[in-house]
Amino acid sequence: MELINVAIAGATGYSGEELIRLLIRHPGIELACVTSRGNAGLRLEEVFPKFQGHKYSALKFSASEPAEIVASGAKVAFLALPHGAAASFASALLKAGLRVIDLSADFRIRDPAVYKDFYGQDHPAPELLLESVYGIPELYRAQLRTAQLVASAGCYPTSITLPLHPLLKGRLIDPASIVVSSMSGVSGAGRNVAADYLYVECNENARPYGVPKHRHLAEIEQELSAAAGERVVINFTPHLIPVTRGILSTIYAMPHPGVDAGAISAALETAYGDEIFVRLQGDHGTVELKNVAWSNFLDIAWRHDPRTGRVILMSAEDNLVKGAAGQAVQNMNIMCGWPETTGL
Amino acid sequence: MELINVAIAGATGYSGEELIRLLIRHPGIELACVTSRGNAGLRLEEVFPKFQGHKYSALKFSASEPAEIVASGAKVAFLALPHGAAASFASALLKAGLRVIDLSADFRIRDPAVYKDFYGQDHPAPELLLESVYGIPELYRAQLRTAQLVASAGCYPTSITLPLHPLLKGRLIDPASIVVSSMSGVSGAGRNVAADYLYVECNENARPYGVPKHRHLAEIEQELSAAAGERVVINFTPHLIPVTRGILSTIYAMPHPGVDAGAISAALETAYGDEIFVRLQGDHGTVELKNVAWSNFLDIAWRHDPRTGRVILMSAEDNLVKGAAGQAVQNMNIMCGWPETTGL
Amino acid sequence: MELINVAIAGATGYSGEELIRLLIRHPGIELACVTSRGNAGLRLEEVFPKFQGHKYSALKFSASEPAEIVASGAKVAFLALPHGAAASFASALLKAGLRVIDLSADFRIRDPAVYKDFYGQDHPAPELLLESVYGIPELYRAQLRTAQLVASAGCYPTSITLPLHPLLKGRLIDPASIVVSSMSGVSGAGRNVAADYLYVECNENARPYGVPKHRHLAEIEQELSAAAGERVVINFTPHLIPVTRGILSTIYAMPHPGVDAGAISAALETAYGDEIFVRLQGDHGTVELKNVAWSNFLDIAWRHDPRTGRVILMSAEDNLVKGAAGQAVQNMNIMCGWPETTGL
Amino acid sequence: MELINVAIAGATGYSGEELIRLLIRHPGIELACVTSRGNAGLRLEEVFPKFQGHKYSALKFSASEPAEIVASGAKVAFLALPHGAAASFASALLKAGLRVIDLSADFRIRDPAVYKDFYGQDHPAPELLLESVYGIPELYRAQLRTAQLVASAGCYPTSITLPLHPLLKGRLIDPASIVVSSMSGVSGAGRNVAADYLYVECNENARPYGVPKHRHLAEIEQELSAAAGERVVINFTPHLIPVTRGILSTIYAMPHPGVDAGAISAALETAYGDEIFVRLQGDHGTVELKNVAWSNFLDIAWRHDPRTGRVILMSAEDNLVKGAAGQAVQNMNIMCGWPETTGL
Repeated sequence: MELINVAIAGATGYSGEELIRLLIRHPGIELACVTSRGNAGLRLEEVFPKFQGHKYSALKFSASEPAEIVASGAKVAFLALPHGAAASFASALLKAGLRVIDLSADFRIRDPAVYKDFYGQDHPAPELLLESVYGIPELYRAQLRTAQLVASAGCYPTSITLPLHPLLKGRLIDPASIVVSSMSGVSGAGRNVAADYLYVECNENARPYGVPKHRHLAEIEQELSAAAGERVVINFTPHLIPVTRGILSTIYAMPHPGVDAGAISAALETAYGDEIFVRLQGDHGTVELKNVAWSNFLDIAWRHDPRTGRVILMSAEDNLVKGAAGQAVQNMNIMCGWPETTGL
Repeated sequence: MELINVAIAGATGYSGEELIRLLIRHPGIELACVTSRGNAGLRLEEVFPKFQGHKYSALKFSASEPAEIVASGAKVAFLALPHGAAASFASALLKAGLRVIDLSADFRIRDPAVYKDFYGQDHPAPELLLESVYGIPELYRAQLRTAQLVASAGCYPTSITLPLHPLLKGRLIDPASIVVSSMSGVSGAGRNVAADYLYVECNENARPYGVPKHRHLAEIEQELSAAAGERVVINFTPHLIPVTRGILSTIYAMPHPGVDAGAISAALETAYGDEIFVRLQGDHGTVELKNVAWSNFLDIAWRHDPRTGRVILMSAEDNLVKGAAGQAVQNMNIMCGWPETTGL
Repeated sequence: MELINVAIAGATGYSGEELIRLLIRHPGIELACVTSRGNAGLRLEEVFPKFQGHKYSALKFSASEPAEIVASGAKVAFLALPHGAAASFASALLKAGLRVIDLSADFRIRDPAVYKDFYGQDHPAPELLLESVYGIPELYRAQLRTAQLVASAGCYPTSITLPLHPLLKGRLIDPASIVVSSMSGVSGAGRNVAADYLYVECNENARPYGVPKHRHLAEIEQELSAAAGERVVINFTPHLIPVTRGILSTIYAMPHPGVDAGAISAALETAYGDEIFVRLQGDHGTVELKNVAWSNFLDIAWRHDPRTGRVILMSAEDNLVKGAAGQAVQNMNIMCGWPETTGL
Repeated sequence: MELINVAIAGATGYSGEELIRLLIRHPGIELACVTSRGNAGLRLEEVFPKFQGHKYSALKFSASEPAEIVASGAKVAFLALPHGAAASFASALLKAGLRVIDLSADFRIRDPAVYKDFYGQDHPAPELLLESVYGIPELYRAQLRTAQLVASAGCYPTSITLPLHPLLKGRLIDPASIVVSSMSGVSGAGRNVAADYLYVECNENARPYGVPKHRHLAEIEQELSAAAGERVVINFTPHLIPVTRGILSTIYAMPHPGVDAGAISAALETAYGDEIFVRLQGDHGTVELKNVAWSNFLDIAWRHDPRTGRVILMSAEDNLVKGAAGQAVQNMNIMCGWPETTGL
């Protein structure tokens, strides 16, 4: 196939670095531009010695400007920028005719009031909110094909929304009963040079954070509400654990009266039985971070507990792949009409 | 004070090793006997080079027989044995007049039918079940003073029972609403030479296990039911995470109508405000494994979530200390009339 | 290109598992047979859930018999077996006309007396020793092209031999002055279910082992002697560190009088300047495990210390890739006439 | 015994934090003052939640000024400050009559020219250099008893100097032959909020640094030269490994002609056989970080390699205890005439 030029804005964060790793081996694209605020002018291999000897190792970082991306001839731009900055890049790039895949939270929330509630500021480009497509391929594949602006879904939301979506859509569980405990590797905090993320502070440690109103709740509840056809409000507690990569979510919900274990399994099988990147482990299997690390898979296992009546869903993904860069590439593959697994 | 001879049966497991560490610096006791099936005849420092240069480094392991313990003149025996074996030692030692602190599950369950349900075998010494005192000092201090047989509480149960107890006792939360997600360090599995616990299998990994009916549910629900005055059945999901030490539990419950955040805080303050080893972090504080590692503290923080109405309780402890050896020593201190912090 | 059937004997160890990971994406081969003593009859995805959804996930493990491999139509067999067992498989497979790439130590030592000295037993197939080619492509590329039996080099030897080879061959350093300290991730011990490799024993720990006569010295000194044209005897101390993957070697040697820093750099540049999998970081760069993890690269940096006169060479590789499975695939690529990077 | 008031300047770094941990249980002192540039006014338990419920938890950090320390009535001051700052504090505190135990490098180097060579600046208080006593108790116990200013030895130097000292003093090894490879846990870098020490950058990684002229060489060579009676110049390569605590050094040296293995062992036994904090593991034993973690022990094992003739010495210590805070407390115990193990 003909190669398409792509760009990565903010290519020195962990999501950007992972995008580079994946795009190096993607047969459909030419990496035309990588931007960085702090490393403009340096070669990729200087900033990331691990990319020495790879394609693009001599590619130089451009300044962090939309104009640089446009000038590179890129047709698709990945934005791995902080929220706020991403919106500004997206506006400029869309105007210049590029298709944009944003990995930040900027275009995930359709309601500007919810955005302001969770992110503490007015949305920088509210006119783009309705145009954007929420980037979980398993839920929005049709819309992604023609999307100009994709809000690639976040790491926690992907791990929580996918298991719950078919159960809410099928009215199988009580939305008010949902409780989620997740644990994430430290790369989820980004390349954030803060004392909290030092090796000595994270090693041999674990801790909850963002309790009870973590920002990712905004998009999780938006998508669960869309599935349920009613407003869904849940409890969600993220925890930081000492691994580099991975998110594991354990989800509790009460089935509606009369819904049995078989109906739960059937709903999940129907929804994801044909999905290549969602691997159903069934009601006897399990999930582990090591099974999904470095891959674009989301694993889901579940149990019905006859003692309490609840269903327990467990999911695992690599937060940098299915939770970030891999999903973004999967979205691109759909947008470009390529097989969804290309480069993944 | 006069020194009391004590013994440890099963001193080469992780709980036994931790008991040695704590008893080395305990001013009230003389470590008279340590038993081991595999290392009888070896000196403590041969099996554990880290104990070289410490008191007792030349103490030799005895064969794993109750008679060895009796012969040592021990007045108190810690049992760090597998369940089943512990019951048999306890019977013999109690008959010989020793006081026994059992770290296994053998005497934690008062109802032999529940024991059989969760442990898959008939209880080996049912006549002792009613005699034993459940070894959480903060709940059973009075009974511990005169106890001959203490069933020192397990790691998960301690981290879950203590936060919930005052809320159930005060009828502040709906027992049917309780959901618990816990994560444990790998030492919680004991010195278990199995592929699942190899470094390469645990490092950069995390996984749920024992879903939905982990054995510790038996004692957790027994104690929660006692507090609530009614049968309590909960969801509890343990997870293995790559740290050596520590348990972190995140607990969700729905307050009864009319119960506000202040009542939750007040109940916890009333219950534990004067407890030295329970540190309340309040409704703005947090818990982290690193704050409790190598100590006998249990930290508890909590939040009321106005969005869902639930209360979230978070607790952290060192599974080998407050979750095992430290709590056992705390129990001994109470039994012997010593200050509870002695040696801790 | 036409697909060639290949087999992996002993596919459930860490090297075998890594071979599967690499061969899944190798465009030149068809994985026709994987053998296992303990898991015969199970599908690949049952033993390794991470391989679900991949090519070959339904491939069943065969019994650990050379006949199974021959029956599969394999033209090339990788042996990821314990030493001793490997020799017996190799004999049978070579007789059946297969080409064999052995990852064990069985055919690395040309002198049966040295084998016996280091491995404590007579060599099981001495007649094959002279036929085998030592599998470091950068040193034996020409011979590998037509080799029937390749003794793919070990993890420590690769990380030590490659940096030293050009300096010894050029008579730039005193062979008697060589001292090497290496550190290895725990996967280097294989999937060895022993107490020493439990998570709790390896985490927050590091230790030397095999001092002063580790088995890998046999092949290291053999190859260094070949380069130097004289018998070379060195000090080598391996250390276990708490990472899953990676070997880092730090090597000290005294240049011969009159040899300056420039000559050292020139020799390394001449030897490896055109090698794709050896990345020279020069006398100002450095090496880190994270730069080579999951890749087939060996990174080398060096310094001349004017204070002592010594040269310090530092190398890093992934022990499971360039130190095992990756190098084996690189050897296969050469044997089959494919580009050396195929599948890597 | 009567309590002596002590102070810690710079109590929020890792060495300062460890000093607090040790001094909390030291029966001879009263912690009268802890200083901090960034946390003045906060209580100890606010900065370090782990110290809640301990003695001194309500002690407030003072401003980082010598006057604050003097005003506290402290008779002994520990300086856990950056080099440069330490010298300035020391001058002021000595003038005020305090005894000073400095954990920085400021007073370890007797020759101001060497200080300038390694630290890149003129020594800030050269007149104090000759007055200071190098704080390794096993080497300078007599002088420490009356010292006013102690330069408590660093982590790498302690682990390297102690094993080599008796061999050089006894003229058993060739000083020109010494090569040292060490590995350190990340806490050795201090609470240094820099990208290099982030969890994600250190986990699953290892790397050499400071090659070939690490600053600690200055004090190592000074002390080795004093032992040898001649100028000693060595190779020393430190490596960062993913553990929180611990230093492991592997040391190579060539015995002088005629010196046999027995003489090496005898020299070490003579030097340290009676030392409580140096544990000799002999020529068959080994060293591991886990055996010394959280303790003030330095373990030493050794081998004579008949193949090369070299002796290999291996040592392990906790870099925060015997390599920093523990050794400082040991020094204080000697200065105050207390048993050396007090509080350790």
